[in-house]
Amino acid sequence: MTTSLAAAALRLAPAAAAGQPAGAIDTPALVLDLDVFERNLERMQQAADRAGVKLRPHAKAHKTPAIALAQIARGAVGICCQKVSEALPFVQAGVTDIHISNEIAGPAKAALLARLARHARMSVCVDDARQVAELAAAAAQAGSAIGVFVEIDIGQGRCGVADAGAALDLVRAIQAHAPLAFRGLQAYQGGMQHVREYAARKRAAAEAASRAAAVVAALAEAGVACETVTGGGSGSVEFDLAGGVYTELQPGSYVFMDGDYGRNEYRGEPRFAHSLFIASTVMSVAGADGAAPRVVVDAGLKSMAVDSGLPQVWGPQGRSATLDYVAANDEHGIVEPRAGAGAAALPELGSQLLLVPGHCDPTLNLYDDIVCIRGQAVAGVWPVAARGLSR
Amino acid sequence: MTTSLAAAALRLAPAAAAGQPAGAIDTPALVLDLDVFERNLERMQQAADRAGVKLRPHAKAHKTPAIALAQIARGAVGICCQKVSEALPFVQAGVTDIHISNEIAGPAKAALLARLARHARMSVCVDDARQVAELAAAAAQAGSAIGVFVEIDIGQGRCGVADAGAALDLVRAIQAHAPLAFRGLQAYQGGMQHVREYAARKRAAAEAASRAAAVVAALAEAGVACETVTGGGSGSVEFDLAGGVYTELQPGSYVFMDGDYGRNEYRGEPRFAHSLFIASTVMSVAGADGAAPRVVVDAGLKSMAVDSGLPQVWGPQGRSATLDYVAANDEHGIVEPRAGAGAAALPELGSQLLLVPGHCDPTLNLYDDIVCIRGQAVAGVWPVAARGLSR
Repeated sequence: MTTSLAAAALRLAPAAAAGQPAGAIDTPALVLDLDVFERNLERMQQAADRAGVKLRPHAKAHKTPAIALAQIARGAVGICCQKVSEALPFVQAGVTDIHISNEIAGPAKAALLARLARHARMSVCVDDARQVAELAAAAAQAGSAIGVFVEIDIGQGRCGVADAGAALDLVRAIQAHAPLAFRGLQAYQGGMQHVREYAARKRAAAEAASRAAAVVAALAEAGVACETVTGGGSGSVEFDLAGGVYTELQPGSYVFMDGDYGRNEYRGEPRFAHSLFIASTVMSVAGADGAAPRVVVDAGLKSMAVDSGLPQVWGPQGRSATLDYVAANDEHGIVEPRAGAGAAALPELGSQLLLVPGHCDPTLNLYDDIVCIRGQAVAGVWPVAARGLSR
Repeated sequence: MTTSLAAAALRLAPAAAAGQPAGAIDTPALVLDLDVFERNLERMQQAADRAGVKLRPHAKAHKTPAIALAQIARGAVGICCQKVSEALPFVQAGVTDIHISNEIAGPAKAALLARLARHARMSVCVDDARQVAELAAAAAQAGSAIGVFVEIDIGQGRCGVADAGAALDLVRAIQAHAPLAFRGLQAYQGGMQHVREYAARKRAAAEAASRAAAVVAALAEAGVACETVTGGGSGSVEFDLAGGVYTELQPGSYVFMDGDYGRNEYRGEPRFAHSLFIASTVMSVAGADGAAPRVVVDAGLKSMAVDSGLPQVWGPQGRSATLDYVAANDEHGIVEPRAGAGAAALPELGSQLLLVPGHCDPTLNLYDDIVCIRGQAVAGVWPVAARGLSR
């Protein structure tokens, strides 16, 4: 055996290199179909443009500067991030307008935000006067200006103040601090994004929008204009664009369309397609002749989030008609033939299987890079630079 | 605004630095209580020593070279990894004996394993003759020697051959290749680790051990000695140590004891305690005066795995008697007072809350480092160097 110096020089090869066939990607790996991805970006931007609503896509879904720049190149006014630390690699990649669509607490986070605000136009949400005071102190310290949105709860029951009176109090608190600028309201109802039935989702969106509109009107009566009303998501974008309340939308998952969003019923426009896959490899078929035919793939809980269900097996014609991913262990996935398909449908040892993740946001957060493919060839590798930046 | 050059120089501060109070850790962060952790390590090593069984702890649980070295310093013979790429940072940190407790498929993985085998004593599992051929070719190419275990299925229904005849065929295949050395059997029953009731788990362990013993005996009859029988886990270690079949145990989670293992009923020895926590911060209390009292913390699906349940809120006296973590969104957690506790039990905006993750292995895989505390002070930060290495 050689010295540890020689071991230190060992490097893990990238999962893929440009020009390789997609079938040669080392697995597990995140794979992005660029043709579908670009079509998703264009459809969303065109829909926003037609409605005269600004698009500020959510980078929490992709955590990837190359994707943010592709969104901005098509007309997005900037991006959202959900955490302050998440914004750092986007600022470094040249994104100049970032909204933190979330409250923050603690001096470390306010200080980082104020530092970032020296390099980019930054804004953040508040739902408590103590957050306002902490932001004002940090901005004064850093010599920067921070935009502030009052978040209102329009039915999710998570963050945000409950009514126009509380919102107005916060507007006055923001206006009392010179380094802070009141920018408007954030109104987001995450729960309704995943209401499956089209008509029920439409009703939920209308209800949420009417709650937001009531607060906007009450503030206007008190002499406070909301320059921006920001919110909305990939599941409700059709309704949000048409509702007349939002001046700016924050969808994230439309870029990839995960298994969860794929289970929604859609009727109107815009429509999006699955562009993101996990490439896995069949690494054991020893049980295939046994009582329960199955194969084992090398992608489990460390390669996908399962909070919104197990991944779907994907084939050349879309979702596999014969194979189901039925169980995830830490590093293993069990794939079985669907009832009626039989053991003959099972793939060979060493075969590559593509999977559609159930939930894209936390799945992206597991990978350091995305392998981009165009047709059946690897086009390049994009770093998921904000992976793990949850502070 | 300043230049992008200045933005490029921005760095995210570490979550904590040695000497700081634990309450000042920037969140979300993984926190390890070193006193409890060291006690867990010592209890396991002493139990193995008493039984005369070798301990080869599983590094898939911690992915942290500093922890592997602490295990080896106490007497562990080496470590297990579950993926070949996972082993790389351990080899680089000076671990010289690593078993890949899993099958691999594909030339990239075999080639990396063969390269690692030039720097450390490496072994891997097989359950198919094609894997043997791939390993032999890679070892010959790299000029290294690879130890090979035949994995047998003792009831999990995942990887491994079903019977002694198939095992013997694989032993013969291994013995036909000079760069490969047959080392013994791997026999692991993951499912029984999480059987809650003590007596039922004991029965399951006995059943699994008797299946393993039967294969060992059949191979011996055919003239094949198993130098090592490796397997076992944190939930069955008491039975595995006493069963007389395993020469080497592979427990991983005992280091941390996650929420899932904490729900098992234990009666015998050794016992382990929760040493691993997620530090979170209350970042919104806007809803606390509303109909359903709750606060929102900054740790959600990107800061913990929820496949084995939501985290438990932890207090100075152990599991909180008044607070429950009831829902995880991507970057938010909802914490409610337990029935009877009332809104007065809710923590203030900006408070730190410790959480016990439901499942340690995939939770570790989300973090780049672990903040170590001793008592109420930060003792240091350990890189989770194998995070994300799932290939």
